[in-house]
Amino acid sequence: MRIDGQRLWNSLMELAQIGATEKGGVKRIALTDLDGQGRDLVSKWLREAGCEVRVDAIGNIFGRRPGTDPSLPVVATGSHIDTQPSGGKFDGNYGVLAGLEVVRTLNDHGVKTRAPIEVCAWTNEEGTRFTPVMMGSGTYAGIFKAEDMHLRPDLEGKTVGDELRRIGYLGEHPSGPTEQHPVFGSYFEAHIEQGPILEDENITIGVVLGALGQRWFDLEVVGMEAHAGPTPMPLRLDAMLATARIVEAVNRIALAEAPHGRGTVGFVQVHPNSRNVIPGRVKLTVDLRHLDAAGLERMEQGLRSACAEIAGSVKTKLGHIQIDVKLATQFPPCAFEGACVDAVRNAAKSLELPTLDIVSGAGHDAVYVARLAPAGMIFVPCKDGISHNEIEDAKPEHLEAGCNVLLGAMLARAQA
Amino acid sequence: MRIDGQRLWNSLMELAQIGATEKGGVKRIALTDLDGQGRDLVSKWLREAGCEVRVDAIGNIFGRRPGTDPSLPVVATGSHIDTQPSGGKFDGNYGVLAGLEVVRTLNDHGVKTRAPIEVCAWTNEEGTRFTPVMMGSGTYAGIFKAEDMHLRPDLEGKTVGDELRRIGYLGEHPSGPTEQHPVFGSYFEAHIEQGPILEDENITIGVVLGALGQRWFDLEVVGMEAHAGPTPMPLRLDAMLATARIVEAVNRIALAEAPHGRGTVGFVQVHPNSRNVIPGRVKLTVDLRHLDAAGLERMEQGLRSACAEIAGSVKTKLGHIQIDVKLATQFPPCAFEGACVDAVRNAAKSLELPTLDIVSGAGHDAVYVARLAPAGMIFVPCKDGISHNEIEDAKPEHLEAGCNVLLGAMLARAQA
Repeated sequence: MRIDGQRLWNSLMELAQIGATEKGGVKRIALTDLDGQGRDLVSKWLREAGCEVRVDAIGNIFGRRPGTDPSLPVVATGSHIDTQPSGGKFDGNYGVLAGLEVVRTLNDHGVKTRAPIEVCAWTNEEGTRFTPVMMGSGTYAGIFKAEDMHLRPDLEGKTVGDELRRIGYLGEHPSGPTEQHPVFGSYFEAHIEQGPILEDENITIGVVLGALGQRWFDLEVVGMEAHAGPTPMPLRLDAMLATARIVEAVNRIALAEAPHGRGTVGFVQVHPNSRNVIPGRVKLTVDLRHLDAAGLERMEQGLRSACAEIAGSVKTKLGHIQIDVKLATQFPPCAFEGACVDAVRNAAKSLELPTLDIVSGAGHDAVYVARLAPAGMIFVPCKDGISHNEIEDAKPEHLEAGCNVLLGAMLARAQA
Repeated sequence: MRIDGQRLWNSLMELAQIGATEKGGVKRIALTDLDGQGRDLVSKWLREAGCEVRVDAIGNIFGRRPGTDPSLPVVATGSHIDTQPSGGKFDGNYGVLAGLEVVRTLNDHGVKTRAPIEVCAWTNEEGTRFTPVMMGSGTYAGIFKAEDMHLRPDLEGKTVGDELRRIGYLGEHPSGPTEQHPVFGSYFEAHIEQGPILEDENITIGVVLGALGQRWFDLEVVGMEAHAGPTPMPLRLDAMLATARIVEAVNRIALAEAPHGRGTVGFVQVHPNSRNVIPGRVKLTVDLRHLDAAGLERMEQGLRSACAEIAGSVKTKLGHIQIDVKLATQFPPCAFEGACVDAVRNAAKSLELPTLDIVSGAGHDAVYVARLAPAGMIFVPCKDGISHNEIEDAKPEHLEAGCNVLLGAMLARAQA
């Protein structure tokens, strides 16, 4: 039994028409009219495929295909259909439509599974209009409360609750597991990698072991602003020089935690930022990621001790530079359930597809669902590792292969 | 014979009333009404001190005190009275009023010098409203043509020529040496240091040997923008990492040219400058300074070879980062005339004032005048090395000492 790659591709292309941009991308921001139209189309497709569709209090959509044993926990899959302002056709959409294609394939072959199957479309994964990101799956997982989320405003003051009602997706079902809808038995999410590893290694299927934990820091370096000409090198407190050393240290700290450590200085703001003035103050951010909590803690300690050392290294006889390090936000690492990871790996193996164990550097709905239920993810390559961009691209054969792996993994769990 | 320190101070404070700011600074931008009022006051004081005042085609003011031997070349001194938008009371103004005080002192003591003495107030040294900087002295020295400078507009489109005429300082004398007014025999300029060295060393008089040559570069670092999460360290082309290495290299190159090498990265602009995106592009500036041309050339070559090496150090198997280095502007080093430098040193010695040989890191009118005439400068300490700031400050006793050195140096040259 194989999924229909052409049908999957056609569905992706049809959904991508809603909010299509000139450069071939998609702009379908959460809870806009276009998001409503996308939801309508996906719901219609799910119903046409025989699913019972329900919507919860945060607008998450669930399409259920019944199993033969209603006492068994649901085997679920999904992702999101909201996009970035300059988003692509595949980020999120692929995971939802791959789930739909699994249902359609089971229908084509008249396969009844023991456990029910559900396809989920989570609300506002991107967080580009309303924060926090991964709002729908986070609410499902109990991280956020639906009534709090309803009050979240966009920049114009429109709230999540009002916008859900306006587009017709303020559902009556409570968000999260209930007696009527207990927690999933398994959850799978197929997604483009959004990184360069699979393409670089020329491998079709990424078996996702988990997601990196993240710690984000705000740093401020305070030195002494002075004229570049009259101030000799030994009398300088150059905030940019200290910043350069922090950037180098962040890189070194991440390299020491290979292969799963990541360290990035993405934001740097120099004051006064004038050609012939020694910078007196620099604000910068540090983004540290690691697969395990101990490694993440080692990286934070490494950053803090490096900053202390660097502050002492930029000095005059009157004093040294000041470096303030503040933790801005953090996400703990997520390790996916062994059984789900194995189901993905075995499904790929039986399809004779090459696999690579991989970790997700970014957040996904599966990371929040994994707080409650056994979860796993399937990555497929995307061109040049680029996403959150209108030029985001993926090959039909890779999307088809990932969907066949999803089918195999869900079947294995639904029949067990 | 000593100058009157209190009178000098009073004149500085009176001139500082014109354009006085709330924080104790001065805003008297070139060719504004306030600049006109300042010029009027200085011209009046020069005339009251018996000087014949003339104005040249670029608005430079010259007040001449006759000598007993009109065939001898003039011994001149001066600086500028235009300020930065948030400027101080001393930058420039001190040099002009110290010259006035020398004339007043000679008058008080009935001293006739053999050579004539002139006090100069150069137009638009700061360059804050009209570029280029040091417009008046540069025109005198033949670097710029007065007719070209007249066309230079400010941001509102008002031109130097129109503004000179409006405030009454478009003079009839040609700018630069003429048969009637041949080149100076000597030129001295007293100035606050605008740097921290004299204060740091607790020395009153800086004997200025020359001014650092400057080479300003615009750099662009181009890597690959990518998500901070999904992109492993070995697959990154992080433009900020390369930038950090350039900053460290600039510091190393300048330290290797101690004590007169200076290297500064004052401006850094990161793209897209987002916390969780690896920077794909960084624009930055490099400011290199050195007392001699060979050293400056060594520094430029050091920068270029460091950039080549750094570009090779930030790489993936697909390629390395690109660093483009463009020379934006340059000023050659200036060595002041031995006879003028000696006159300053000897004058300080005979006053039993401690001196330090020092170089100017910044440009001054004396640097342009030195292209034509023997020139020298006298530096006095300023508080915390700060200038171009309303909190710019200097001690009356230091200003008095510097003016006595000016008197001694000018007398030595005028009687020689």
